[in-house]
Amino acid sequence: MTGTDARQAPSGDITQEELQLAARNHGMPLEGLRYDVTPVGLHYLLIHFDIPAADAATWTVEVGGRVERPMSLTMPDLRARPAVTMPVTMECAGNGRARLHPRPLSQPWLAEAVGTAAWTGTPLAPILGEAGLAPEAVELVFEGADHGVQGGIEHDYGRSLPVAEAMRDDVLLAYEVNGMPLPPQHGFPVRLLVPGWYGMASVKWLRRVVASAEPFTGFQQWAYAIRDDEDDPGTPVTRIEPRALMVPPGFPEFFTRARVLDSGRCTLEGRAWSGRAAIERVEVSADGGHTWADAALGPLPAPYAWRSWHYEWDAAPGEHELVVRATDGIGDAQPLEQPWNHHGLANNMVQRVPVTVR
Amino acid sequence: MTGTDARQAPSGDITQEELQLAARNHGMPLEGLRYDVTPVGLHYLLIHFDIPAADAATWTVEVGGRVERPMSLTMPDLRARPAVTMPVTMECAGNGRARLHPRPLSQPWLAEAVGTAAWTGTPLAPILGEAGLAPEAVELVFEGADHGVQGGIEHDYGRSLPVAEAMRDDVLLAYEVNGMPLPPQHGFPVRLLVPGWYGMASVKWLRRVVASAEPFTGFQQWAYAIRDDEDDPGTPVTRIEPRALMVPPGFPEFFTRARVLDSGRCTLEGRAWSGRAAIERVEVSADGGHTWADAALGPLPAPYAWRSWHYEWDAAPGEHELVVRATDGIGDAQPLEQPWNHHGLANNMVQRVPVTVR
Repeated sequence: MTGTDARQAPSGDITQEELQLAARNHGMPLEGLRYDVTPVGLHYLLIHFDIPAADAATWTVEVGGRVERPMSLTMPDLRARPAVTMPVTMECAGNGRARLHPRPLSQPWLAEAVGTAAWTGTPLAPILGEAGLAPEAVELVFEGADHGVQGGIEHDYGRSLPVAEAMRDDVLLAYEVNGMPLPPQHGFPVRLLVPGWYGMASVKWLRRVVASAEPFTGFQQWAYAIRDDEDDPGTPVTRIEPRALMVPPGFPEFFTRARVLDSGRCTLEGRAWSGRAAIERVEVSADGGHTWADAALGPLPAPYAWRSWHYEWDAAPGEHELVVRATDGIGDAQPLEQPWNHHGLANNMVQRVPVTVR
Repeated sequence: MTGTDARQAPSGDITQEELQLAARNHGMPLEGLRYDVTPVGLHYLLIHFDIPAADAATWTVEVGGRVERPMSLTMPDLRARPAVTMPVTMECAGNGRARLHPRPLSQPWLAEAVGTAAWTGTPLAPILGEAGLAPEAVELVFEGADHGVQGGIEHDYGRSLPVAEAMRDDVLLAYEVNGMPLPPQHGFPVRLLVPGWYGMASVKWLRRVVASAEPFTGFQQWAYAIRDDEDDPGTPVTRIEPRALMVPPGFPEFFTRARVLDSGRCTLEGRAWSGRAAIERVEVSADGGHTWADAALGPLPAPYAWRSWHYEWDAAPGEHELVVRATDGIGDAQPLEQPWNHHGLANNMVQRVPVTVR
């Protein structure tokens, strides 16, 4: 299987194709890390094809395949079911791709493909219970209304989950974000939400849920895997690797985004998250990673929301490189150097922020 | 006056600095042209420095300088005043910059730096009336809370308007967008809104309104001008030049954004706008600009909102280049080729959309 997005560019300048994607797909400016819940419009967006036109009045989610009782759920049906609201940190599996050498040609994220939203929806598991999964069902396939070509294959965006993941209590069919109906770009009128997984699993503009007796082999299932080259069967990308980011301190130069900070006491702050376990440690280095100190952690958040951290720094005049590193509850820590992979996925190298203290 | 953003790059690849800006500053995906009012989160954003942290409870807008009665307006003060809601199309003066050869180094917009929002606020003119402009006042200077360095100069973002423009009925201090409080990225808690002008005039995070006896000479006033080179005094950028854009038809390839469309009858649609006069004509070409036909125009919108258009096209199999061109009520039409200027401002070359009809 080949795709135009499976090529690489040498280090350095960004192609016109990458620019077209960067102009469409929004990152979260890192000062957005100051909010517990990312305001609408600052959350990252990655949209493979076009944002579909959608009419909530006629929209249905079809539940079929290997089920005993196929269902067709309207938006009023979904809204009449029990509702849950939960803050969830979502990150694009391609975050950090533009830092790789050579650079896989796709959406050129630096570090900003993240956001935390308060999603409201109804749990999927009881719906699957009512539909009655057949004993031979091994996966649920989720298909969106967004249609296009990728890797030479024309398809509706689709992804699958193993039955056990799809049946988790916290997997939702979400129809609101931050207390308002989903805006078009977040999957209006309804999307899947898979807390803890990279964003590719949370299929937007959800049209169909299909119980399948075989593992799904669609393009998007193939594309999101860690592999050395195109022929490597690879390891599927699932849960979000740990990462901490800081609000860049001081103020920026417009074009270079170089940071200037006044000397003296300064509170560095940011957020950290992991899709596998709670964040248990955040360390800060003010000398490029030679020496580290523990940051103070904020209260333990909801299971899949980012955790705040802060660190008091006495900034002395001169040039400094700030670095931040997270470790989660199963002991996974961010690497100082990024291992490379073919599609540039699941990168979580530490953030480095050069600052000039005056 | 020199700025790192006043250099140019040869045609071709995008620098890392431009990518950093593109990852922060959101464009409107062009399928967003289907909405009369752009949903929150799809409107373009251009933020020179960082999004400031703002507390509406303590925020004030100071009105001072050459006035008889200086004022300090809190958010409750502003909300207690008469409120107006109006749909306004806003466009970044740098839209289209990345299509120039050589390419001025700044935010690398293609064509997506636009949006139409329903802004709510209170007119500025009565406030200036109450403050009492001194006879010697010639301009109002508007300063935001966003702080940084550009062109080697550290400053709060600031821009001025001549008194006559500032006193227009439709110039607002806006505190809501699309019926909700401004989100942080749109200037929370209050911004200036100057309908018809490129976005640089609508100062966000508004802190101070200063009546001045001399023309303002701040960096941002200098930077937004059409000039041949850095030493050219240039012509200030003010009102939005006419432009039409179409929703790219069919569906895209993920990486190249190349469009594929099924043959047969197809409705091409989009929006057109101008800051100087109503849109009176939109023409469509399906052969790269050799022959043109008039599109049907939607109802005349509010004075500064974009106008819808559509065109029925019988798409025959093969390769086509769609082009769209707007003309406004004072006879200004979009150029087929873009005249170059030093900062890459006020570009409004026609949009060209290659499509493969199958």
